[in-house]
Amino acid sequence: MSTEAPLKKKNENFSEWFDDVLQRAELIDIRYNVKGFIVYRPNIMFIVKRVYEIIENLLIEKNHKPTLFPVVIPISSFKKESEHIKGFESEVFKINEAGGEELEEELILRPTSETAIYPMFALWIRSYKALPMKIFQSVSVYRHETKATRPLLRGREFLWIEAHCAFIDEESARNQVKEDLEITKKAFHEFGLPFLMVEREPYDRFYGAVDSYAFDTLLPDGRVLQVATTHYLGQNFSNANVFDIKFTDKDGIRKNVHQTCYGPGVSRIVAAIISVHGDEYGLVLPFDVAPFQIIVIPILKAGKEDVIMEKSKIITQNLSKAGFRTILDDSDERPGEKYYKWEMLGVPIRIEIGEEEVKKGFVTIFRRDLRSRKKVKDEDVIDNILNLKSLILKELEKRAWDTFNSSIISVNSKEELMKKRERAKIVRASFCGRKECADEIKAETEGLEVRGRRIDIKEIPSEKCFWCGKEASRVVYLAKAY
Amino acid sequence: MSTEAPLKKKNENFSEWFDDVLQRAELIDIRYNVKGFIVYRPNIMFIVKRVYEIIENLLIEKNHKPTLFPVVIPISSFKKESEHIKGFESEVFKINEAGGEELEEELILRPTSETAIYPMFALWIRSYKALPMKIFQSVSVYRHETKATRPLLRGREFLWIEAHCAFIDEESARNQVKEDLEITKKAFHEFGLPFLMVEREPYDRFYGAVDSYAFDTLLPDGRVLQVATTHYLGQNFSNANVFDIKFTDKDGIRKNVHQTCYGPGVSRIVAAIISVHGDEYGLVLPFDVAPFQIIVIPILKAGKEDVIMEKSKIITQNLSKAGFRTILDDSDERPGEKYYKWEMLGVPIRIEIGEEEVKKGFVTIFRRDLRSRKKVKDEDVIDNILNLKSLILKELEKRAWDTFNSSIISVNSKEELMKKRERAKIVRASFCGRKECADEIKAETEGLEVRGRRIDIKEIPSEKCFWCGKEASRVVYLAKAY
Repeated sequence: MSTEAPLKKKNENFSEWFDDVLQRAELIDIRYNVKGFIVYRPNIMFIVKRVYEIIENLLIEKNHKPTLFPVVIPISSFKKESEHIKGFESEVFKINEAGGEELEEELILRPTSETAIYPMFALWIRSYKALPMKIFQSVSVYRHETKATRPLLRGREFLWIEAHCAFIDEESARNQVKEDLEITKKAFHEFGLPFLMVEREPYDRFYGAVDSYAFDTLLPDGRVLQVATTHYLGQNFSNANVFDIKFTDKDGIRKNVHQTCYGPGVSRIVAAIISVHGDEYGLVLPFDVAPFQIIVIPILKAGKEDVIMEKSKIITQNLSKAGFRTILDDSDERPGEKYYKWEMLGVPIRIEIGEEEVKKGFVTIFRRDLRSRKKVKDEDVIDNILNLKSLILKELEKRAWDTFNSSIISVNSKEELMKKRERAKIVRASFCGRKECADEIKAETEGLEVRGRRIDIKEIPSEKCFWCGKEASRVVYLAKAY
Repeated sequence: MSTEAPLKKKNENFSEWFDDVLQRAELIDIRYNVKGFIVYRPNIMFIVKRVYEIIENLLIEKNHKPTLFPVVIPISSFKKESEHIKGFESEVFKINEAGGEELEEELILRPTSETAIYPMFALWIRSYKALPMKIFQSVSVYRHETKATRPLLRGREFLWIEAHCAFIDEESARNQVKEDLEITKKAFHEFGLPFLMVEREPYDRFYGAVDSYAFDTLLPDGRVLQVATTHYLGQNFSNANVFDIKFTDKDGIRKNVHQTCYGPGVSRIVAAIISVHGDEYGLVLPFDVAPFQIIVIPILKAGKEDVIMEKSKIITQNLSKAGFRTILDDSDERPGEKYYKWEMLGVPIRIEIGEEEVKKGFVTIFRRDLRSRKKVKDEDVIDNILNLKSLILKELEKRAWDTFNSSIISVNSKEELMKKRERAKIVRASFCGRKECADEIKAETEGLEVRGRRIDIKEIPSEKCFWCGKEASRVVYLAKAY
């Protein structure tokens, strides 16, 4: 990385800002020779690993167990659930040859793993004692998207976690959906990301689900990004005609399990962290997400190199010992170059140590989120950073939620929508619930989609649908989406 | 898992023992509906993650950076290096259809990632300042093996790490090979696994390599298992006709980089840990590899449940605080069932707490490796376990190396080989170095392969090849191999 002018303002031209930051921070390379496939470079991989860790730990805390299923699914298994195949068949990559010979049965690359995992559930689950079964895997999935691909936001290979659970009855399964929502909320709190938590409309469910719930966040260009979904599958996959997943219940009766699946999208979450918090100097990472939390930079002065370097090393050691991921940049670059580089990478805290700092027993702490400096006495450094850790997250979260909330505008009619369209990234409105109406809105507004009903609060609609004037049955949120 | 009779002795029928332990410990399911592909269950995934962590940390310590490249490689890129394609083309899975349409260019699933990564190296490397470039990725690779597949040992999808490096000259690249060998030695020390560290014979090199080095370990059935390899690639992939990876050197001259690649096989390492250390009670895990290091089991007695449970909780908490991965098994199963289960899973230390332990202020510590018990005073528990941590590893390592070393027999002639064949799992002999001779040995001995020359010590051959009687040029090791 070389020192260059700041990036553009992300709110003015998000697309350019995003491409620019991916390149300048050396996060992603889009020049891989297969359309829709990208290379994750080291600077983003450290962040990707942190995001995986945070979510995996939350899952494990709630008794989900890690597994790994094959990347290939036999076509016969993939075709078992009729809704599911309808939804995905136009997107799958097919393997029909191996070692120069045609395969006996075609295989697909997993677009999602219900049809890989549930045949094993049928083998593993015998009695109610095996339930609940709660597993997950952290993998890439493959979908031949026909929409324009965008790095991290919409690709043909993307990173996610998928959790799959089986239960004795509907109630336990629906409780799992609630737990998934709580896990997502906790994770998003650590990421400092705002979200709309909605139930998708019936015509917009996951293929094969009974009910679908989703988290949408908002990107600076005013489009929302679905970052996680969880689904109550009922017995759609477990019934006798599909994977026939049965258990003997306490009462001795054989029953089919109720299922849920949950998918936080890791590529998209990372994209959202970059986009929501970033600024014209690059990434701004929440303290816990940051692979490197503190960068120590010695400001050398002729004749004082030794003492400055010594203090820098001691501070680095002390912070590492205190459990902070700290690195000392003792490279030959000039301080300005180092500032540029570590700000671009979003390191939350920079500690500058020069002649003055050595002489007077303090350090200069720079906060990446505010881009502000302050002096802190040597003996107070650790306490100060412990304090900053939560202050930084609060600041990022507040800013992000403020932007998010101010982008939601309620409208009561088509006319009001058209008038406020500019300010309203997310539109709140009473709605009739008909798919035809939703389709019409999308067509006439260049892409506003009904994203669903909030599930964290109960909202009472006014009498009429804002668009068609027929009776309204729900309050929904509309937005353009990735 | 239910309490059952012990497993068979692994030395008597390894194949049966191995299948049995994979099933009884619920590690792997081989019933996935695509031949050569297996399902990793939670009990093994925790171990897999530890093995990844240990090797990744060693790589990162030596400045390797994590990356992630696509699983698909365009056929045109795959075909660039002639030796490489010759070696792998009979094993690749091909994708020629996506979303119902034929692809413009066929894609293969990565069998290894040289041809995915090196085109990007050509874009990333401009000047000597970008060198050395040291990256790795932790992924699955896909090879349509025609030999019989065996779970973990030989599969069509297997887990590994691949590190790829580029350097200004041959010397730096060859030093990287040495570093790779050191990393592997360190990792294998943590795994308690013995190994033969050899240079492969010229006709047995990685496709596209100048020199190939490998770690072979020994399984209880007397066959060796290649668990890691590292290769000096020279300029075979960087030259102008292949990927043309050039940099401007300090002297201003454009030069092609020298390269290395390194691949520790995670599935196979896990298989070796299971096989080498395991016994008729299941897995025996080295302390650092174990996902759960200590299991605390309360032995409840009527009327004393509360005090026994309280002490169990306190001990668990204290051990967790001290940094040990500790769990308390407070389930309703009988102690015997719990013993069976956690022994099967190889937890290195079990702490039993009953009435006596509460009354007299001690705990009973059970070592999985020795299956022996001792009493330890409450106040000494942590020190004791800190001590056991290295004792257990030493014990496992010593046993494994003893078995390994006693399986190596030197022979001076064909006759001597045939006589000692039973005892000699690994045969040490002076050898002419000719491929024809190696082929003849393999054919006439039901599979003894020349595995290569040791590189950690210099061994001087006697005058004649033990097999053909021609002049000997090296001391080699021979074994049947997976």
